[in-house]
Amino acid sequence: MNTTYHQFQLASRPVGNVKRSDFNYVTQTLRDTTDGEVLVKNLYISLDPAMRGWMNESKNSYIPPVGIGEVMRALAVGRVVASSNPKFAVGDHVSGLLGMQEYAYSNGQGLNKVDPKLAPLPLYLSTLGMPGMTAYFGLLEVGQPQAGDTVVISGAAGAVGTVVGQIAKIKGARVVGIAGGADKCRYLTEDLGFDAAIDYKTDDIAAALKQHCPDGINVFFDNVGGDMLDIALAQLAFGARVVICGAISQYNNTTPIKGPSNYLNLMVKRATMKGVMVSDFYPRAAEAAMVMGGWISSGKLKSREDIVDGFDTFPETFQKLFTGENHGKLIIKVAAE
Amino acid sequence: MNTTYHQFQLASRPVGNVKRSDFNYVTQTLRDTTDGEVLVKNLYISLDPAMRGWMNESKNSYIPPVGIGEVMRALAVGRVVASSNPKFAVGDHVSGLLGMQEYAYSNGQGLNKVDPKLAPLPLYLSTLGMPGMTAYFGLLEVGQPQAGDTVVISGAAGAVGTVVGQIAKIKGARVVGIAGGADKCRYLTEDLGFDAAIDYKTDDIAAALKQHCPDGINVFFDNVGGDMLDIALAQLAFGARVVICGAISQYNNTTPIKGPSNYLNLMVKRATMKGVMVSDFYPRAAEAAMVMGGWISSGKLKSREDIVDGFDTFPETFQKLFTGENHGKLIIKVAAE
Repeated sequence: MNTTYHQFQLASRPVGNVKRSDFNYVTQTLRDTTDGEVLVKNLYISLDPAMRGWMNESKNSYIPPVGIGEVMRALAVGRVVASSNPKFAVGDHVSGLLGMQEYAYSNGQGLNKVDPKLAPLPLYLSTLGMPGMTAYFGLLEVGQPQAGDTVVISGAAGAVGTVVGQIAKIKGARVVGIAGGADKCRYLTEDLGFDAAIDYKTDDIAAALKQHCPDGINVFFDNVGGDMLDIALAQLAFGARVVICGAISQYNNTTPIKGPSNYLNLMVKRATMKGVMVSDFYPRAAEAAMVMGGWISSGKLKSREDIVDGFDTFPETFQKLFTGENHGKLIIKVAAE
Repeated sequence: MNTTYHQFQLASRPVGNVKRSDFNYVTQTLRDTTDGEVLVKNLYISLDPAMRGWMNESKNSYIPPVGIGEVMRALAVGRVVASSNPKFAVGDHVSGLLGMQEYAYSNGQGLNKVDPKLAPLPLYLSTLGMPGMTAYFGLLEVGQPQAGDTVVISGAAGAVGTVVGQIAKIKGARVVGIAGGADKCRYLTEDLGFDAAIDYKTDDIAAALKQHCPDGINVFFDNVGGDMLDIALAQLAFGARVVICGAISQYNNTTPIKGPSNYLNLMVKRATMKGVMVSDFYPRAAEAAMVMGGWISSGKLKSREDIVDGFDTFPETFQKLFTGENHGKLIIKVAAE
């Protein structure tokens, strides 16, 4: 076992895109666990768009910002390597907010045991983790698609979008995904069974939506915000539901977020705009895991992870989320078992 | 009886504020009614912010635009002066989309009889008409205030806002109105019983909202849009309802509508944004009339009309809606009985 480990501490609040200099790469020394504590060796760390928001000073957020000098907040899965907590044994695998570090000390709160025999560990950060639950509850509880509805998803090739689209198909909806690049679009239609995919890098999105959604959009699941949201708002069907899940196009803004100019269409089309916060549904995590686990087993739900080797690549790897370079759930592999 | 009458026809689509030159003032000759037709002498014509939208070429609206050369669309109350329709007799008073003209021919569709003995005629264009119904159903069905909730209203001294606030008080909510000028603010708190009023012309709206809504805003009823909506979105309480009724600050824009930058707060605060379209509730008009009529009789609901004499003042009088010069429901008096 190592005697030291590394962590990324937030050094300053990033302006625009995240840079390596926004973090301090710090070496810490391992110590014995104190009473109630467990020591987790992080194996995979999740990179999620929401982390960009956690780096900002904000009075009005759902979670306090990461403090300057604190370890960057991140979801991870790892293995317990030392424990003074009766609920966790050495060798247990766990997931939780373990942070952007190679080892994490935890009092056990918020840690969930995961079983690598039931699913590969990275899946607990993607479809069986936070993004999958966001998709499941955001679509079914907030979006409420009916069979025959047209569901449109922005950021459709991402960790949340791919799951939203597949669940919508399972529920009998027509599914149109918006993603960047021919490869991703082909993946959506050929591998995941989407009815259509729109390449925002080359297609006229408004014209393509008109073509693929002749009766309008019943559910718009938005991960992107900005112009994409406006274009979709202009083509809502009567009684549509707009699910606000994220606004990745706006997170690195140095100017105020672009609000949706076409929001008055909510009135014209008697539509509803509502956000989804996955944490509201944590008490129902087992339900989502059971249902989605079944779909995965039966081949109805596919999951793809984009695993980058090397803990110390974090600042640059993180940026892939915003350039769209990742293909599937972006995860850093920290260590082998 | 006259042999000629006047009408305002839309001459061109206004750019920005409405000007007299956007209309043709046309003289028409009265003729006999044909089979099924009624002739109505307009007595009072309603001036509503929505009319500004009807003047625009728009593919994406809830109602077709007024065509160039057509009589400007407007709600009015009048008296039947000739009838070849068995449902309407000479002397009946009616309300409906009778248009910006001194006399109107109608096939009777969409005309409702109103009784001047039960309420003064202008009231059928304000609290007992479209604005009152918008307030009633928009607040109760979309906003769903609970006793103890804090309800904030923009454009609070307008025809819709005054009714929203009074109904919210009747339902046991705390009510904060935002309006322009000390007179209007005093009217809200002293005459209508609002708990607080914020003068957007002189007050720091964000600071005043913080003071008057220490636990956040449970229902925001928005008639104004623009910066006002953004300021309110930043101070929503958990589970808030944002009712989009209008965006009078944006209707004369020559640039795109300002969308709400703070819309992601819908996600953070698990809030819902939804529009109200009064036409959805027309089948329940009698319910609203009965309930609000009762409140008016018992003195719980007050109504104020700002009646301007002179049909031919229309273009200039209409502009008062956007400068905020009107005090109460803006109505043009066309003629005596």
